[in-house]
Amino acid sequence: MHPVVADPEASVFFAVSKDVLLVEPPEGSPGVTHPRGFLAAGVAAGLKESGRPDVGLVAVAPDYRAETVGAAVFTRNSFAAAPVIVSRAEVLLDRLTAVVMNSGSANACTGAGGLIAARAMQTATAAALRVPPNRVGVASTGPIGHRLDTSAMQRGIDAAAAALSADGGSRFSEAILTTDRFPKSCAVDVYTRDGVVRVGATAKGAGMIAPGMATMLCLVTTDAVLTPTVARSLLPREVSHTFNRISVDGQMSTNDCVFLMANGASGIALSREALALFGGGLRTVLLRLALMMVADGEGATKVARLRVKGARTDEDARIATRAVADSTLVKTAFYGCDPNWGRILSSVGAALPDSSFPRVTLDIGGVRIVQAAEPVDLTPDQRDALHATMRGCEIDVVLDLSVGAGTDEVFFSDLGHEYVTVNAEYHT
Amino acid sequence: MHPVVADPEASVFFAVSKDVLLVEPPEGSPGVTHPRGFLAAGVAAGLKESGRPDVGLVAVAPDYRAETVGAAVFTRNSFAAAPVIVSRAEVLLDRLTAVVMNSGSANACTGAGGLIAARAMQTATAAALRVPPNRVGVASTGPIGHRLDTSAMQRGIDAAAAALSADGGSRFSEAILTTDRFPKSCAVDVYTRDGVVRVGATAKGAGMIAPGMATMLCLVTTDAVLTPTVARSLLPREVSHTFNRISVDGQMSTNDCVFLMANGASGIALSREALALFGGGLRTVLLRLALMMVADGEGATKVARLRVKGARTDEDARIATRAVADSTLVKTAFYGCDPNWGRILSSVGAALPDSSFPRVTLDIGGVRIVQAAEPVDLTPDQRDALHATMRGCEIDVVLDLSVGAGTDEVFFSDLGHEYVTVNAEYHT
Repeated sequence: MHPVVADPEASVFFAVSKDVLLVEPPEGSPGVTHPRGFLAAGVAAGLKESGRPDVGLVAVAPDYRAETVGAAVFTRNSFAAAPVIVSRAEVLLDRLTAVVMNSGSANACTGAGGLIAARAMQTATAAALRVPPNRVGVASTGPIGHRLDTSAMQRGIDAAAAALSADGGSRFSEAILTTDRFPKSCAVDVYTRDGVVRVGATAKGAGMIAPGMATMLCLVTTDAVLTPTVARSLLPREVSHTFNRISVDGQMSTNDCVFLMANGASGIALSREALALFGGGLRTVLLRLALMMVADGEGATKVARLRVKGARTDEDARIATRAVADSTLVKTAFYGCDPNWGRILSSVGAALPDSSFPRVTLDIGGVRIVQAAEPVDLTPDQRDALHATMRGCEIDVVLDLSVGAGTDEVFFSDLGHEYVTVNAEYHT
Repeated sequence: MHPVVADPEASVFFAVSKDVLLVEPPEGSPGVTHPRGFLAAGVAAGLKESGRPDVGLVAVAPDYRAETVGAAVFTRNSFAAAPVIVSRAEVLLDRLTAVVMNSGSANACTGAGGLIAARAMQTATAAALRVPPNRVGVASTGPIGHRLDTSAMQRGIDAAAAALSADGGSRFSEAILTTDRFPKSCAVDVYTRDGVVRVGATAKGAGMIAPGMATMLCLVTTDAVLTPTVARSLLPREVSHTFNRISVDGQMSTNDCVFLMANGASGIALSREALALFGGGLRTVLLRLALMMVADGEGATKVARLRVKGARTDEDARIATRAVADSTLVKTAFYGCDPNWGRILSSVGAALPDSSFPRVTLDIGGVRIVQAAEPVDLTPDQRDALHATMRGCEIDVVLDLSVGAGTDEVFFSDLGHEYVTVNAEYHT
């Protein structure tokens, strides 16, 4: 298993700053219930044929609901699912106090009936929690085009509301999985001068992951005191630095969303200085989840990081990173442990056409393999080091186009036989 | 094998107009030597480790060289290979009278040495044929970043020049193959009021094929009398209608080029009316080769045609067709015989974000499966018809976005296990 999943300290792509403590008890990350004043549950409502958990609920504990502040980021896909439409248009996101999520059906491309089902999900949760419906966010994941079974959903929500507990984070994380091989949670303590604030999050995502406005389901909780303005600016910024820098198969799905709830239970209002630390903690949590998603990319055997520098502009760098990360030729080469620099350059050259990069350099795992647009004759030691990198599970690639100061970074998975198997067999 | 390869009349994607006769003798298409006054050869020069043919040469017969007119279309990839740079900048394309091509090395990312090697290829061919070097086009295909063996190349060119013959088309077609499973040639007779003109062509391409300025190696010959102006406008137009409408894996390679030579051997100068017929014949030839390339897509088991209509603009339609054709999720679904309309809509929705297509419809194999952005409840007969289509080797998909008059069309292959195997093992 990839280091960032099993042992983040062994990952070269993941670092935790000194003011942030990763909370990873042996029994697994507490995720969204690590911050004080949050309750969570996950139950099996029969939406999944497998009978596995499929309805998850996270709510601010009653004492903190009045103080809670929220924010969200949604997919820009023009076929956005019904729960996205409802959460985006019919929820007072500033005052978000609960989120209900289901797996087993994406409730996407389900028309007016889908909107009714998404609103029913919201209303049932609001009733069970005794909060106004417009305080409840909804999200769904699973096959597209299937109607939600609203009576099973109603029973699931009632059961989840009854099961809410301060240690329900891990059960919640299991209820939102689809093709994921493992649940994805992360929790940190952020040490500020005024005291410790906690951040926790759970996400799901394995296929259909790409840089986009938002790229999967994710729920973030914190007991910090945030203003709506801060929450609204912080979340998109940290999403752009983490989830929007990963790619499994180049798709921005119909259902992607990231919710944030800050209930203020720590009593700590963040100074400007503390806010920077908090932002770092939030980024740590989201980056860990993002890397977990790449490592869990359908059929992925390795994670690559590509940093492009020296591009004419940051936008050119972004076009280049995306072209490489989405190239099936590069991804299959990496699966075959082949440092195929020709395919990397060709992808970039096709994505940034009608230009010239005569001084381009490419390094893989610290070994310079292209210099001035030509392959370098490697020493036997360099060749061995390169092949050791390619056989490992983290591949660090740096491309310097040497024509400007534009930079960008992306994390992507390889593409192997299991991707084909999973995706040829997972039917809508 | 796909109908367009084995039996074009069985293909639903391929039609020949009544003024065009496909010339397909039992021993295979004569390709570039079908038009009168062309000589071709293919020899094994040792550039390929397998020992298979790897140097191909096509030249206008001496009697017609003075009258010959040429044109070419090249890749826009910023890492264009040395032969592309030489052919684009140092050949009088209007007067192109011979083209030499090799497989076994792409001569791309080979720096100044690569340019010298490409010019040596050109000079050796010119010397062997006794024509000026700037009348000779060069093209290469194979792994990127390998130096050409110029002495093997020199021997190969001499042998090819000595072997030139009026029935060498099929040997030429074999000399330019790399991962192709079969050679690709096509020849037609075009019946004009003034007489019959002939068009022949050979192409290579299996991976790295996508809509772009040009998408593989191709050489077209005709014995019609063309002016340079007509040749220069006709070729890009017909390339845009054929090769630029296919996608195997979304890459525009470093080596793509299409050459045209018209030697006037028929003595028939085309009237305006005849020129339209000739354009139709040229399109027939290029479309057949383009469909052969898709059918030969690495690991491809089927060819799909997607027609998008009702887009806001033609450019939006093009973005939509390309997003679907390049979607690994759609391609793996088709490999699994799954009519996964959810992935098709999701790809389009991600590529054309922040919009709304409430009246979208989708038909596969003539069965309406999405109406007003929702799945249609199919009758058992419709379900059977749909599954028969998905199990076949040609899948016809029509997406109507219902918001405007923009249209586009693309042909693409599926993506299966063999694609992964081929591309994980084909090293630069």
